[in-house]
Amino acid sequence: MRGVVLHAPGDVRVENRADPRIEQPTDAIIRLSAACVCGSDLWPYRGVDKVEDPAPMGHEYVGVVEEVGSEVTGIRAGQFVVGSFWASDNTCEICRAGYQSACVHRVPMGMLGSQAEYLRVPLADGTLVATPEMPPAELIPSYLAASDVLGTGWFAAVAAEAGPDRTVTVIGDGAVGLLAVLAAKQLGAERIIAMSRHEPRQKLAREVGATDIVTERGEEGIARIKDLTSGLGAHSVVEAVGTQESMMQAIHSARPGGSVGFVGVTHDVSLSGMDMFWSLARVQGGPAPVRRFLPHLMELIGSRTIDPGKVFDLDLPLDRAAEGYQAMDERRAIKALLRP
Amino acid sequence: MRGVVLHAPGDVRVENRADPRIEQPTDAIIRLSAACVCGSDLWPYRGVDKVEDPAPMGHEYVGVVEEVGSEVTGIRAGQFVVGSFWASDNTCEICRAGYQSACVHRVPMGMLGSQAEYLRVPLADGTLVATPEMPPAELIPSYLAASDVLGTGWFAAVAAEAGPDRTVTVIGDGAVGLLAVLAAKQLGAERIIAMSRHEPRQKLAREVGATDIVTERGEEGIARIKDLTSGLGAHSVVEAVGTQESMMQAIHSARPGGSVGFVGVTHDVSLSGMDMFWSLARVQGGPAPVRRFLPHLMELIGSRTIDPGKVFDLDLPLDRAAEGYQAMDERRAIKALLRP
Repeated sequence: MRGVVLHAPGDVRVENRADPRIEQPTDAIIRLSAACVCGSDLWPYRGVDKVEDPAPMGHEYVGVVEEVGSEVTGIRAGQFVVGSFWASDNTCEICRAGYQSACVHRVPMGMLGSQAEYLRVPLADGTLVATPEMPPAELIPSYLAASDVLGTGWFAAVAAEAGPDRTVTVIGDGAVGLLAVLAAKQLGAERIIAMSRHEPRQKLAREVGATDIVTERGEEGIARIKDLTSGLGAHSVVEAVGTQESMMQAIHSARPGGSVGFVGVTHDVSLSGMDMFWSLARVQGGPAPVRRFLPHLMELIGSRTIDPGKVFDLDLPLDRAAEGYQAMDERRAIKALLRP
Repeated sequence: MRGVVLHAPGDVRVENRADPRIEQPTDAIIRLSAACVCGSDLWPYRGVDKVEDPAPMGHEYVGVVEEVGSEVTGIRAGQFVVGSFWASDNTCEICRAGYQSACVHRVPMGMLGSQAEYLRVPLADGTLVATPEMPPAELIPSYLAASDVLGTGWFAAVAAEAGPDRTVTVIGDGAVGLLAVLAAKQLGAERIIAMSRHEPRQKLAREVGATDIVTERGEEGIARIKDLTSGLGAHSVVEAVGTQESMMQAIHSARPGGSVGFVGVTHDVSLSGMDMFWSLARVQGGPAPVRRFLPHLMELIGSRTIDPGKVFDLDLPLDRAAEGYQAMDERRAIKALLRP
């Protein structure tokens, strides 16, 4: 089959890879309807994360089940399914508590490479959620968003305790940040401040629920949030970048007793204990347990209540994956969809 | 009046200080029934916090109201009162949300020095809580504990979401850690693991509710907690030390989706963003909003449901305050009570 392989920083190729096959009786094989490039794929693409050997790429996926292993009982061939970037059994104590991204049997899907024609999904019963029927083509991008960026933005908004009567600030105007705005809106937040200095992204932020846009960053950004919140800070802050500056901005934008949900991958970030202490903020982040939210998100998509697929502003055939990486790297595209 | 003054690291004196008087119409003056030495008083005593000028010491207090300012309506002369180490109006938006230690009008009581005969309490209506009647002498230590260490341990347990069906780990066997054990017990925690290597403190920990004692620290301590929790980690972790090692131990002892409440003053602590990310723990700490819990804690003390006063294992007249500091510095005493 055809699949994306990263050979070295900046060197993305689409080449022949071995067809995946059932390896464990709990596996499923799916034929991908669409895959996409993630902001986190840019870490190795930019050489921030080391690339040792040629690596299959991609961890977001929707598709049609081709085949299931002998122990799979909840999923069957022919179903349209969505899964998250961690395969999880959905039955262990950690999964039952809603933290499937830390399932005791978790498997990172990134190792398997979903930017391809076919994908092996471990722990299929726990990982995959099927739609009631085959969805129309126009909903494919939204279901694909649910696989990671929507679920991640949603988790960040939940961790930040976005809800009625709360002011939510979202730092980061990538796909995750924009969908955290959407999530905050769905969760009933009264006021949603999107921090963005890119005009097209500001527009999209407003479309999905932002009530205010702040273009300043760092200390100035914090001051603007204080201005907008009677000097107190936001009740809820979503951090969706992962840099030192954005994490500091998040912690200092929250009011005492406020909450910060962070989902930017915090490379080289160091948090001062005293800053955390005096902030009195509740801080939670990490790899989002998207599986917790998938059934609900898929219902919202199926009923056309939300349209998270609009974050895909570049739609390419799989063979042109390299263009998608480049456009995202240069911030010409928010998110690139790849069609096998 | 007589009062404790710190002149330099290790140099604690009891000397004459000016009698406090009403300065603002919202003030009260109280005659102290008892005061005490706090673990945080040891930071300047040890020279970790700089001592610039001779500083009045103490921020924990119970006493009888002598006089109130013209705008005080809820508190009157003759009442026995307890207050926290932050004076707070208890009416601002932050106070109403339960974060009185970040009240927009807060005043740090440590500047006023409660290790003395008399104390001025700003924002008396918001800060002080009166008992229904004059309490018997044997309850004075417990009410005094409510002023800081009990309230702080309680906040840590609440921030760590201690409760039914949860395993709670408490790091730190000082007064705050021991009273966090008591709080976890009152909050209904199923299992409470106290981390302590001091036999008398282990005994006290068991008396107030610990079900298990772990003597190991650092990586070994984390491994023991994992052993005791099916490899998953504790649901709730209280950090009551404030060092780099204890904070790391706290974050790595929590299960994914677990909660960490930290109340040790995190001097020179730096948290790795990636450690926070992968832990998936909810982390909250800071100066405890003791005022939130005071009415409930005072009821529990008045009804003799809890006996937090047992953390005072040294009872001295005010004039011998220096002995109290020394004993706590050398860990010969858990907490020293001072009687003016």
